Amino acid sequence: MKDQTDIPALMAEIGRRARAAAAELAFAAPEAKARALNAAADAVWSHRTDIVEANAQDMDYGRDKGLSDAMMDRLLLTEDRIKSICDGLRAIAAQDDPVGQVMAEWDRPSGLHIRRVRTPLGVVGVIYESRPNVTADAGALCLKAGNAVILRGGSESFHSSTAIHACLVEGLRAAGLPEDAIQLVPTRDRAAVSEMLAMTGFIDVIVPRGGKGLVGLVQREARVPVFAHLEGIVHVYLDKEADPVKALKVVMNAKTRRTGICGAAECLLIHREALDTVGQGVIRALLDAGVEVRGDGTLQAISGVRQATESDWGCEYLDMKIAAKVVDSIDDAIAHIRRYGSQHTDCIVTEDQDAADRFMTRLDSAILMHNASTQFADGGEFGMGAEIGIATGKMHARGPVGAEQLTSFKYLVTGDGTVRP
Amino acid sequence: MKDQTDIPALMAEIGRRARAAAAELAFAAPEAKARALNAAADAVWSHRTDIVEANAQDMDYGRDKGLSDAMMDRLLLTEDRIKSICDGLRAIAAQDDPVGQVMAEWDRPSGLHIRRVRTPLGVVGVIYESRPNVTADAGALCLKAGNAVILRGGSESFHSSTAIHACLVEGLRAAGLPEDAIQLVPTRDRAAVSEMLAMTGFIDVIVPRGGKGLVGLVQREARVPVFAHLEGIVHVYLDKEADPVKALKVVMNAKTRRTGICGAAECLLIHREALDTVGQGVIRALLDAGVEVRGDGTLQAISGVRQATESDWGCEYLDMKIAAKVVDSIDDAIAHIRRYGSQHTDCIVTEDQDAADRFMTRLDSAILMHNASTQFADGGEFGMGAEIGIATGKMHARGPVGAEQLTSFKYLVTGDGTVRP
Repeated sequence: MKDQTDIPALMAEIGRRARAAAAELAFAAPEAKARALNAAADAVWSHRTDIVEANAQDMDYGRDKGLSDAMMDRLLLTEDRIKSICDGLRAIAAQDDPVGQVMAEWDRPSGLHIRRVRTPLGVVGVIYESRPNVTADAGALCLKAGNAVILRGGSESFHSSTAIHACLVEGLRAAGLPEDAIQLVPTRDRAAVSEMLAMTGFIDVIVPRGGKGLVGLVQREARVPVFAHLEGIVHVYLDKEADPVKALKVVMNAKTRRTGICGAAECLLIHREALDTVGQGVIRALLDAGVEVRGDGTLQAISGVRQATESDWGCEYLDMKIAAKVVDSIDDAIAHIRRYGSQHTDCIVTEDQDAADRFMTRLDSAILMHNASTQFADGGEFGMGAEIGIATGKMHARGPVGAEQLTSFKYLVTGDGTVRP
Repeated sequence: MKDQTDIPALMAEIGRRARAAAAELAFAAPEAKARALNAAADAVWSHRTDIVEANAQDMDYGRDKGLSDAMMDRLLLTEDRIKSICDGLRAIAAQDDPVGQVMAEWDRPSGLHIRRVRTPLGVVGVIYESRPNVTADAGALCLKAGNAVILRGGSESFHSSTAIHACLVEGLRAAGLPEDAIQLVPTRDRAAVSEMLAMTGFIDVIVPRGGKGLVGLVQREARVPVFAHLEGIVHVYLDKEADPVKALKVVMNAKTRRTGICGAAECLLIHREALDTVGQGVIRALLDAGVEVRGDGTLQAISGVRQATESDWGCEYLDMKIAAKVVDSIDDAIAHIRRYGSQHTDCIVTEDQDAADRFMTRLDSAILMHNASTQFADGGEFGMGAEIGIATGKMHARGPVGAEQLTSFKYLVTGDGTVRP
């Protein structure tokens, strides 16, 4: 291993190795990749005690650093959670291999036969924060798609990630695949992140998973293409034709099922004409469930609703809080979402198909829901298997990013001495 | 119009207008977009005299600047070429509209119905060089895909592009679409290009079409995502099982049909065991056709072959020249292409299916040909209609980039008060 204080040299070495591994992985047999993932699951399970011990070191570090309870909970690994990691690895192993899939094929009058087939992207860089399970999920999904991956976990989860990574490498070795297919940056030095963002010669795409600090850094410094993963400023709009029962079910689930996930609702928009018939009941139920409702002027009439301020619009609480506002029309709702949303997931509750169509046509969120809870914004719920995150950008990948979205494609053209006139 | 010496202010104004137009275009009726393109074709044809006059100003400027004959030829607009521009506009008008197309749909056990539908990318920035017809092609393709576009043509074609752009705006007006849907940067100041490359708030993707100078600038400065269009360092490999007749037809067409296009062959690789049976005849034919052949040591035995130097490998001649080299195996050919190619288009000539599979699996060019001329690397020949170029990157778009590749997608999810357990 190189001198770890010379970060540019260290990262260039990691990049070179990743590139070399990617060239091999691009045509690795699907069975070998599946074998590596199953062997990695075996390794994680048999090393679970070591992993828990490594995690204890991280928990000590986190306590010294004064991490919040929520952060500490994300960091924690228990035997149950390690079991989930193993299950995740095996599930990805069992998925269809996307590489080489024929996406389309057609014949041309010239006599050519054209196939468009999936290929790996090459080298993926994943920059994430406290959750150590991302090490396994991201490593496995990238491998499944035939990519080499450079993982850069949060400094809080350093020991846990290192222990999990060792198991992934054990899996690669067992399957005869290059060990450099999944590399973990072996330093907590933050300069490594800046280096990754600029490694255009070695990394094909960066997947950032983290809070505003990381997103901002990526936006400022990235020279490598990025799959944007912004926050989920999720809106639910109750249309004037909203069904009261569906509205209640959807809003309560969207807000309270789990408040800490990116598909949790953060803002409720209510059509003025649905306020008495639907809105009041929904807000009452939210308050009764212990949700803090921050409403605009009109909603102050409902007892228990707090006054919203400008900073509540577009706020991602990830907590038992919701902003709420009365709008005069569906177009006002659309305008509000365009201004304050993050193009992640937004929902309309209505029985009016025209209104639903208008909402879904005029908004350009990665996921638009009609009469369904926004908490369904998840690769597993979409039937895609595991996901590396929910992309909010428009380029290449969008919505839940699974193995298939971690691929590119090429055209294979077959002739018989065919020439162009 | 803003003060044109304050480039940042000018470009921000153009960006704001494009963003506003894009929000309207995203749900413009397919018929309106088609009507705008047909009306633009009518306008181009009825203003053909003005366009030719504007072009004459550019030709004078080009002569003063000492442009090469090839560059002057690219710049020139004749009535015939203007007719082609009109035909191109009408062909794009007649294509299927990609926006709103359902790419996939499926049901989930939860009761959700999920549709993945095409959406526009938003605002596209096109930076190009001397060919004034790109103004019409790029403007039309972006409009078809529901994108607003900011066009920045070469300074040589400034007057021609301005005249063509006026006709596109006439078409937009006739169809009741926002005139800001297709904007042309109204200054030759190069600072406008740097500004575009950094306008992350206003431009979703940059499509650069030009030579090494532009590609280098884009690589250094772009903060906006880019559809990479590198040069076409196109290789043809004659395998040891190459059929002599197919080899001759394919190589002659790939090199000499048109030498100035990006799909023209630039390097010939010959398996040692096919040298006497296939290679010699092909090289003889190239020499007889007036192609300068720059060969490695072994090929010096053939009279008329010049000595290649290191700079010939990976060179894009775009001329009646070709580099040629003898290799010991298909893997040597693959290694050579990996090292010197540009992942644009590469070809194998062989009767051995295993060799063809190996070549097509192990190389990752955007287009791989088997027994077919590399001059087929073209959106029209692929059946995609017009193209804005051939992308050599791996992100989002690859190979010929037509209207469909200028789109993104979103997920539309329908339930019936469906909530997540």
